[in-house]
Formats: sequence, structure tokens, C-alpha cells
Amino acid sequence: MNSLPQPNAILDRVDPVARLMKLARDDMAAVDALIGERMGSPVPLIPEVASYLVDAGGKRIRPLITVAAARMLGYEGQGHVALAAAVEFIHSATLLHDDVVDESDLRRGKAPANQVWGNAQSVLVGDFLFARAFMLMVDAGSMDALHVLSRAAAIIAEGEVRQLEAQRDIATTRDAYMEIIGAKTAALFAAAAQVSPILAGRSKDDVRALETYGRELGLAFQLVDDALDYGGLAKRLGKNIGDDFREGKVTLPVVLALDAATAEERDFWERSISGDRTEADLDTAIAILKRRGALDATLAQARGHAKTAQDALKVFDRNPYSDALSSLAEFVVERAY
Amino acid sequence: MNSLPQPNAILDRVDPVARLMKLARDDMAAVDALIGERMGSPVPLIPEVASYLVDAGGKRIRPLITVAAARMLGYEGQGHVALAAAVEFIHSATLLHDDVVDESDLRRGKAPANQVWGNAQSVLVGDFLFARAFMLMVDAGSMDALHVLSRAAAIIAEGEVRQLEAQRDIATTRDAYMEIIGAKTAALFAAAAQVSPILAGRSKDDVRALETYGRELGLAFQLVDDALDYGGLAKRLGKNIGDDFREGKVTLPVVLALDAATAEERDFWERSISGDRTEADLDTAIAILKRRGALDATLAQARGHAKTAQDALKVFDRNPYSDALSSLAEFVVERAY
Repeated sequence: MNSLPQPNAILDRVDPVARLMKLARDDMAAVDALIGERMGSPVPLIPEVASYLVDAGGKRIRPLITVAAARMLGYEGQGHVALAAAVEFIHSATLLHDDVVDESDLRRGKAPANQVWGNAQSVLVGDFLFARAFMLMVDAGSMDALHVLSRAAAIIAEGEVRQLEAQRDIATTRDAYMEIIGAKTAALFAAAAQVSPILAGRSKDDVRALETYGRELGLAFQLVDDALDYGGLAKRLGKNIGDDFREGKVTLPVVLALDAATAEERDFWERSISGDRTEADLDTAIAILKRRGALDATLAQARGHAKTAQDALKVFDRNPYSDALSSLAEFVVERAY
Repeated sequence: MNSLPQPNAILDRVDPVARLMKLARDDMAAVDALIGERMGSPVPLIPEVASYLVDAGGKRIRPLITVAAARMLGYEGQGHVALAAAVEFIHSATLLHDDVVDESDLRRGKAPANQVWGNAQSVLVGDFLFARAFMLMVDAGSMDALHVLSRAAAIIAEGEVRQLEAQRDIATTRDAYMEIIGAKTAALFAAAAQVSPILAGRSKDDVRALETYGRELGLAFQLVDDALDYGGLAKRLGKNIGDDFREGKVTLPVVLALDAATAEERDFWERSISGDRTEADLDTAIAILKRRGALDATLAQARGHAKTAQDALKVFDRNPYSDALSSLAEFVVERAY
């Protein structure tokens, strides 16, 4: 009887997010409750728009990192729940504002909020969630955590502006791309991981180790996302294939394909990235990316960052939480396959 | 020789903002320097957009209130400078996002930022300023002040959403209007005034008195602004006449005119506010508002709020700062004449 693995055990092995969610079940239930409560407003449209986004199938990886890191360190207080909710609110606010910035017609598998309610509503409800994020941080009571998260929020905005500037610019370098994803994505992962040792009053080395874990995980996450935008090897959930291509975003796969491009391929990228493209061009783009090994190379780089994230955890005593955080880093890359 | 008033003395009498600016010169210079520094970013577009807005002839009334209230209370630290800059950043972020929300083609006498750079840039630079505002609050080091300002930011967003919902709705009541301006405008004035006694470690009564001062001043300010949108008695600086009318905003002048409307006038408001209007309708609207005394009544209500603001200051010992804050409340209304 015992030779067959139980369904839960199978689930644990295939999806470390599910395993981590189970491990941190009580904390994440508290985070969920707090998120639901703090989305509340006497203005009904606000929870309506906010819950459309917050409930829309996000995996809550960022707050999960905050909560798991706090537990890994043996933190016994409740501040990590408020900070985890704050991290998710910042992320949700960013998504709402991205809907206005980008032109995608799919977000977490649904029409983006600005297409349902309008740009004004997306901007304002994003602002509301952003403000509520800071109220949650006040509740957590750590000025140092507040500094880390407000700084991350400023860096995210900088990264998004840089991304806008790099749009349709095939001269975008690998370094520029890495700086952009470091700011727009990895900064919040880094902050999400870093606030827990701060809250737990741990040493600077511990804070730095978890910051590295978060940042490297965030970089891996975004690299995989950018590979999956071209179909990668797996299909992305809840997003369109080819959104980046349609928006003229020069992500690492394109940078790498450009490095190895023939004259003809370069002409193709110049024309299609700078704006003059048809839907059929997406198939050509994917074919070139595969031919040049650009998707594999992007995923290889993602694996490198995931490995660095795992290594950063080695300074901590092993326990179920550190193990789960370590497999989370692997999972972020493995979901591509 | 001495019988002629000096130019500065004339200026002082006609413009209490100028007088207050002179009184708080050193503090406001420090606020300006800090604003300039914290607008900085390695991403050049950010200070470019931010300074377009922040330098664009705003009177900096809100940070002036923070600084003057701190000095009135004999506060000797430097935290008020950081909080004043934070207040101005929140205000600027709100203006940038309002550009996306509204459809005005004039902001502080210039084309709004979103028409110069685009909606995406206005949203993201607004987010950046918002995040930097919270970093400034961290510098000031008061968790209570952080709570007040983050709460105000959430309330502003709620007010803006409510205003959107009330747009083109002639059933908007006086109470609904007062709640909207209480949230979208007066909440930040209240917070700007309230953070200083918090920073100075004053009693709850003092905090409440300055909160009242700020809120009532903010209400007076918005009422006057809404009267001036119809030309009022004076001309608005740097804004178009009739913006609210064109956007179908039901402000107090319209609410009051509707209360006293003939059947024909009501038809006019129903048609013109709900969307079907020509430029010539603005002249008709102004004529009706004057005929019904709606602008005078709006300004009378503003005077009442200014008076309440002045009364709130009476619990404090008189000094040049309390006098200046008191005349500021008068000025906010008098600028209409």
C-alpha cells in the first residue's frame, strides 16, 4: 500500500509552489485575509477592480517568499504577514499601471482591467493599492523594511521607464536588458526576501544573502517569462504568446538572436521590432530564435541565476522552509519545460 | 522717505503666500533643494518629466503649510523639510496621474505632461514620485507621520474614483460633492498640517487642531477653484475656464444651480452635463450660475471653511507663523476677487 506515492506527494514533487503553499498555509491564509480586508473601501468600484486583479490566478510567489523567509529564520511575530500583503499590493498596483502602459489584451488569462473599466480606473485603483501597501508597512512597524520596499517601488518605476525607452530600439544591449529586468522585476523579489531578515533582526550578512536570493530568483523568473513569450518550450499560462514582440520589446532572446544574426535576419528584426510587422512575422521570429538557439541560451542563463539564488541560501541552517525556497528557485526555471 | 511703503511691504499685504514664503525662506529653500535632489534618477526622462511638473509654477502651498506649522510649534529638527517635500511629491504624483484621468489641455499654464510625453510616462513618473515620497517619509523617521500620509494617499485615490463615478451625473448631491473634495483635495492639506505637530511630539488636541486647519483650508481652496472654473469673479491662473464643465464634473456651483433651476434650466444642465454640449453652452452655464447666485454662494461657503480654519489656530500661542497661516486661509478665498 505504501509503495504508491500519495496524490499530495506527487503534487509536492511537481510543484514546489504548491508544497511551499502547504508549508506556509496558515501564514498565507492570514495574508489572504489581510489582502481581502485592506482592499476594502466605501467606494465599491475599488475592491471590484482590485479583486479582479488580485484574485485573477496570480501565484502570490512574492508574498510567499516573504512569509517563507521569515519562517526559515524562525521569526515568531506577525509583521511578516503585513509585509507579504504589502509586497502583493505593490505588485498588483504595478500590474494595473502596466495595463495602461502596455497594450496587451490578456492579463492572467483575462482582459486587462483598463479594458474593462478604463485607464483612469486602473491608474487610480493602482494608486489606492500602492497607498494601502504603505499603510500595511506602517502596521509591520519596521522603518528599515519601509525603506527597502519604498526604494524597490521607485526602482520598479525607473525600470519601467527604461523599458519604455528601449522599446522598438534594436540597439538595446544585453547589459541594458539586464538592468531593466533587474529593476522592473528583480527589485521587488529582492525586497520581498530581504524584509524578512530585517524584521527578524538578523545580521547584515543574512539580509544580503536573502536579498541575493530574491534578486537572482527574480532575474531567473523574468528571463523564463521572456523566453515563454515566444512559446519557449512550454506555453505560458494566462498570457498571449508574442506580446513582447507585438510591443517591440527587445528582450534577451532578441538581443541574443541579433548578436548571431545574418544580414537578412538583422533586416527582419530591424523592421519588425521598430514597428512595421504583421502577425505572420511572429512565426518567423520564433523560427529565427530557435535556429539561433536564443531561447535555449536565455533559459540557460535563467538556470544560472536560479543556481545563484539557491547558493545564497546555504548560509542558513537547513529546514523545510529553506528546502522549499531552494526548490522554488528550480521550479521557476523548470516551468519552462 | 519712510512714508512710502516699500515694495516688499506691499507684496506682503497683497499676498500672504509671499509673506509666508519669506518667513519660511530658509526652510523652503531646503525643501526645494531636497525636491530637486530626490527627483534625480539615472533615467534622465524621470527628472525631465518630474521637473516639468514640479517647476511649473505651483505655489507649493502644501509644503509651506507643513513647514510653517512646524515652526509655529517651535519644532527645531529637520524632519519637517523631508515631510514637506514628501507632501509636494504626493501632490505632484497625483497631478501626473490626473492628467491621464482628466482630459484638460492646460495644467499650470502648460500642456499636461501626458500630452508631451504620453500616458505611460505620466503614470510611471507619478509612481516614481509617489515611491520617493515614502522614502522621504522614512528619512523623517516618524511612523505616525507615515501613517497619516499613506492614509491620505489612499483617501485621495478613493476621492478621485468617486469623482469619476459622479461625472456626468446631475443627481450628485451636495453631500456627495463635499465628500469628494474632502477626499481628493482636503485630505492632503489636512495631512500636510497634521504631520508637523506629530513630528514635534505635541498633544492629540494640537494634532487635531492642525488637522482641522488643513482640512478646512483645503475645502475652501477647492470650493474657490471650482467657482473659478466658471470664471468666478477673477480669472484662474494656468488653467482653462470651463474644464469642469467640459468634463461633466458636477461641482458645487452646478449642484446649487440645479437646486434653484427652472424646468428649462434643468433640461439645459441634464443635456450639457451628461455629455451633449457645445462650446457656446459654457456661456449659457456661466450666465445661469450667475443668475442663480451659485458662484457667490460657493464662495460664501468657502469663506466659512476659511474662517473655521482660522479658528482652529486659536489654541496656539500667536506668533508670526500662526499669523501667516491665518492670513493664508483668508488669501485662499480672497484670490477669487
